[in-house]
Amino acid sequence: MPQQFQTIGLIGKLDYPGIKAPLMRVIRFLQQRNATVLVADAVAAHLDADVCQPATVDEIGRRCDLVVVLGGDGTLLSAARQLASYRIPITGINLGRLGFLTDIPADVMENVLGAMLDGAYTEEERLMLAAVVIRGREKLFRTVAVNDVVVSRGAMGAMIEFEVYVDGQFVYNLRSDGLIISTPTGSTAYALSSGGPILHPSLPIMALVPIAPHTLSNRPIALPKSATVTVVLVRGHDPRVNFDVQSHFELQMGDKVEIKANRHPVRLLHPEGHSYFAMLREKLHWSEKL
Amino acid sequence: MPQQFQTIGLIGKLDYPGIKAPLMRVIRFLQQRNATVLVADAVAAHLDADVCQPATVDEIGRRCDLVVVLGGDGTLLSAARQLASYRIPITGINLGRLGFLTDIPADVMENVLGAMLDGAYTEEERLMLAAVVIRGREKLFRTVAVNDVVVSRGAMGAMIEFEVYVDGQFVYNLRSDGLIISTPTGSTAYALSSGGPILHPSLPIMALVPIAPHTLSNRPIALPKSATVTVVLVRGHDPRVNFDVQSHFELQMGDKVEIKANRHPVRLLHPEGHSYFAMLREKLHWSEKL
Amino acid sequence: MPQQFQTIGLIGKLDYPGIKAPLMRVIRFLQQRNATVLVADAVAAHLDADVCQPATVDEIGRRCDLVVVLGGDGTLLSAARQLASYRIPITGINLGRLGFLTDIPADVMENVLGAMLDGAYTEEERLMLAAVVIRGREKLFRTVAVNDVVVSRGAMGAMIEFEVYVDGQFVYNLRSDGLIISTPTGSTAYALSSGGPILHPSLPIMALVPIAPHTLSNRPIALPKSATVTVVLVRGHDPRVNFDVQSHFELQMGDKVEIKANRHPVRLLHPEGHSYFAMLREKLHWSEKL
Amino acid sequence: MPQQFQTIGLIGKLDYPGIKAPLMRVIRFLQQRNATVLVADAVAAHLDADVCQPATVDEIGRRCDLVVVLGGDGTLLSAARQLASYRIPITGINLGRLGFLTDIPADVMENVLGAMLDGAYTEEERLMLAAVVIRGREKLFRTVAVNDVVVSRGAMGAMIEFEVYVDGQFVYNLRSDGLIISTPTGSTAYALSSGGPILHPSLPIMALVPIAPHTLSNRPIALPKSATVTVVLVRGHDPRVNFDVQSHFELQMGDKVEIKANRHPVRLLHPEGHSYFAMLREKLHWSEKL
Repeated sequence: MPQQFQTIGLIGKLDYPGIKAPLMRVIRFLQQRNATVLVADAVAAHLDADVCQPATVDEIGRRCDLVVVLGGDGTLLSAARQLASYRIPITGINLGRLGFLTDIPADVMENVLGAMLDGAYTEEERLMLAAVVIRGREKLFRTVAVNDVVVSRGAMGAMIEFEVYVDGQFVYNLRSDGLIISTPTGSTAYALSSGGPILHPSLPIMALVPIAPHTLSNRPIALPKSATVTVVLVRGHDPRVNFDVQSHFELQMGDKVEIKANRHPVRLLHPEGHSYFAMLREKLHWSEKL
Repeated sequence: MPQQFQTIGLIGKLDYPGIKAPLMRVIRFLQQRNATVLVADAVAAHLDADVCQPATVDEIGRRCDLVVVLGGDGTLLSAARQLASYRIPITGINLGRLGFLTDIPADVMENVLGAMLDGAYTEEERLMLAAVVIRGREKLFRTVAVNDVVVSRGAMGAMIEFEVYVDGQFVYNLRSDGLIISTPTGSTAYALSSGGPILHPSLPIMALVPIAPHTLSNRPIALPKSATVTVVLVRGHDPRVNFDVQSHFELQMGDKVEIKANRHPVRLLHPEGHSYFAMLREKLHWSEKL
Repeated sequence: MPQQFQTIGLIGKLDYPGIKAPLMRVIRFLQQRNATVLVADAVAAHLDADVCQPATVDEIGRRCDLVVVLGGDGTLLSAARQLASYRIPITGINLGRLGFLTDIPADVMENVLGAMLDGAYTEEERLMLAAVVIRGREKLFRTVAVNDVVVSRGAMGAMIEFEVYVDGQFVYNLRSDGLIISTPTGSTAYALSSGGPILHPSLPIMALVPIAPHTLSNRPIALPKSATVTVVLVRGHDPRVNFDVQSHFELQMGDKVEIKANRHPVRLLHPEGHSYFAMLREKLHWSEKL
Repeated sequence: MPQQFQTIGLIGKLDYPGIKAPLMRVIRFLQQRNATVLVADAVAAHLDADVCQPATVDEIGRRCDLVVVLGGDGTLLSAARQLASYRIPITGINLGRLGFLTDIPADVMENVLGAMLDGAYTEEERLMLAAVVIRGREKLFRTVAVNDVVVSRGAMGAMIEFEVYVDGQFVYNLRSDGLIISTPTGSTAYALSSGGPILHPSLPIMALVPIAPHTLSNRPIALPKSATVTVVLVRGHDPRVNFDVQSHFELQMGDKVEIKANRHPVRLLHPEGHSYFAMLREKLHWSEKL
């Protein structure tokens, strides 16, 4: 039977000391399995010229059947954001403690990856967000987010004030440290620290989670995938919007941030036997009793 | 053009002093509009024999095109539970302050109902829950809930301990005052008081919301409509499960409560111009600033 | 140098299987140290008549210089409540996992107790609550609580409504599952599960913590030791008040529960080196990271 | 009977358009009452030279028996911080909606102030914080806070990590948006938005309130007035500490912020009949029901 994943992209965490050894392990293993391996430029620079085929992330998106990420959740988030316009499946090998997203342990990567190449995997489609910053009539900035879009105060500590609209309907005006527009994937990240609910990753929904809201009765609200959320800055010093805490844009009064579901979801592959609930229990210490 | 709603059921709040006058107003108005009006038995008993046609709730479900509820949110919840096996649309006239569900003001009921009969309404389908209590192999009790299924401690104030499974997968073990399995409709009721998120009423999801959880990291979680949630009682004195705080069942150790989406949703009709977000703002005082 | 603690009372957890062995260990050790040991009646019944001197809890309170509790936090709470009118110091040997209050590990009890008898201990005074239930002009019930006084709903799950006064001044009206009036000791118990703050045990304060409050802006509030808190039942089915979840009283509409600091605090002895913060970190898993 | 307050300082909100008229009203009223009025330099600049006696804030602190603040809570906070080393009583006239601190309505200021000068007032002493930033062995910055000291992330949105010590004892390590060290006065400000408890203003305590804590079991904790809290920055980009959101200091890794009760409290005068609980109810909408 022909292998489903013939051409495989490899993206790695750059500032991880000693990334070279595990990178080489993945490359050799995939090559033994007769896969063509494209290695992201920035990572390939760490390796000898003859061991791999360097490629831009766009080339990887266009040509590969699968992307393997070597790093932590942050590395996978970054890869997924860069590959947002391709419908390419992604899986993650974790170099440290297992993450929420990267669930192949580095030490047994050959066994697990091998089984996955043989078809022993499950696939999840996870909602991603597309955001655009609008000033007047101009669309100034456009990007995507896998975890969250966060409109937030600057460094001085003073609250910001903004209005929230859903599909053009006024929802509320709020003074707070900010607002998190979170995907189910992001619901176990910053949104959770701010009192947001956990959203099962299969749900085609997003949540609005206020950060330190001045109005005590303001609560997180979950919205359908079809919703267009608009946040309009009304007051505040030095407000920002950031995307997965990986890129950001400095806002001015009157700026609008428009957020909706991205056209393509993230396609995440897990080793067979992956349990979302087991991961939650482990990460959140739900087994612990006082 | 023939009127869409020819046969209309009428269900009212029984213990409301002075219900007779508004009941008569609705009946007369609907009769003027040439509708056949079936009045729920219990309500009809308050009226003169010749003004209306009494019917059981089941007859109403089978024969009517629309049910008008006269009362508050609790009356509408009760009607929706009784009519759960029919796909009949429901609308509510509120006798007091407008509710989350009953949004026709009593004083202008003729105008609003009239417009709705002429087609000026919007329809929502809202997820309802079906629950069954299982002891050993026996299914002891079966009912539905529009707001929530609540597994909870008894009167003595001591915690209960239970295990939660989703689709047979273990999720967590918890000691707490209880667990709320909430629909989007119930997300602005008890679940909200217990720290749960607001779920937009269009969402085909349910939320698990712990009540005073002993494990501080346990948080509300939203699950897809397809989920079967099972709560297994492990420890505790005098535990109960209640449904919309309208019916309840006394549990024993080892009992299982199995909850999933009901086959039929609630079909709720609103007057045109109804805004869910405006209602939230009003009910939750989101416009208020400290 | 004469030993500070000459006469020592011993109170134990009754329903603990195998309590006899550790009880005998404590008794023998204290007798070797030439202490007179009075054993609480109920516990003494488990032992041979000649090994110890049985006594009522009142006798223990009147005659002893120290009470040693053998059990868990619940056993210590119960002992402290019974001894509330005596200013007698208490220390706890834990038979299971270390508790918030009982911090002498059973396996090294001789070493630790021995050092404490030699003066190597620290003493804490912790605020206790005195409560009285008033119906009309009659004081129907009077007791004390070490953790909390909890006015709460009954088994049916419906909210109760009550008014809260402090020193006769109206504070708020609330519909909720109940209200916890907590001491610093109780602040890591039920109050913490309900969203209350942790109060350092040295603080002469109490906290009002609402349970699942209907008014979303209602928040826990800390009050001075001098405060008299009055809770007046306004509405609800089958309301109760319980004290440390150890005794309770069934309330009627209009009943008042009046709570203030007890005349005497709890005097708690810890082994030297006891750290409240280390205990918190351990119990609440504060060292854990996601 | 000689008047208690002979020399009265006047401090006003500078950027309030139309402050001149109410300023003149206060000055004239106090002069009619034969008080000597010292007007803070910055405010006096708005007035004609002959109507008042300009003074530095320090002169006001040294020479006056009372300071009247004309503005909002922010103006009063600022005045109280500047006057922290004097034990001078302060009272506030509110130019807009009544504040938590400024409770003399502008429109009836003469009546209320007049009664207060006649002795119809109550005095509160409220704990203030003194903070110092330490780098290595150097004390770099020193100030006071009436509401809170906030160690917090910068503009980029990434968490900071820090260690907290109380009286030299390690309490916890936390990754979060920051930590609020709040007085009872500040407990209804930022700390409340971040989930902190309300602390009665008479309490000689402070609270540690985490902002969006990564460790879900981390909770607000109230500490005695005697505590010295030390926050040590461990990780994070661009961290800050701010004081009442009025002044701030940019921190580096390893910096320590040491916070304890200020030697002097704030002395706040209220018109007779002032009720803290009535103010809370009004500000927090506790009377509101869903």
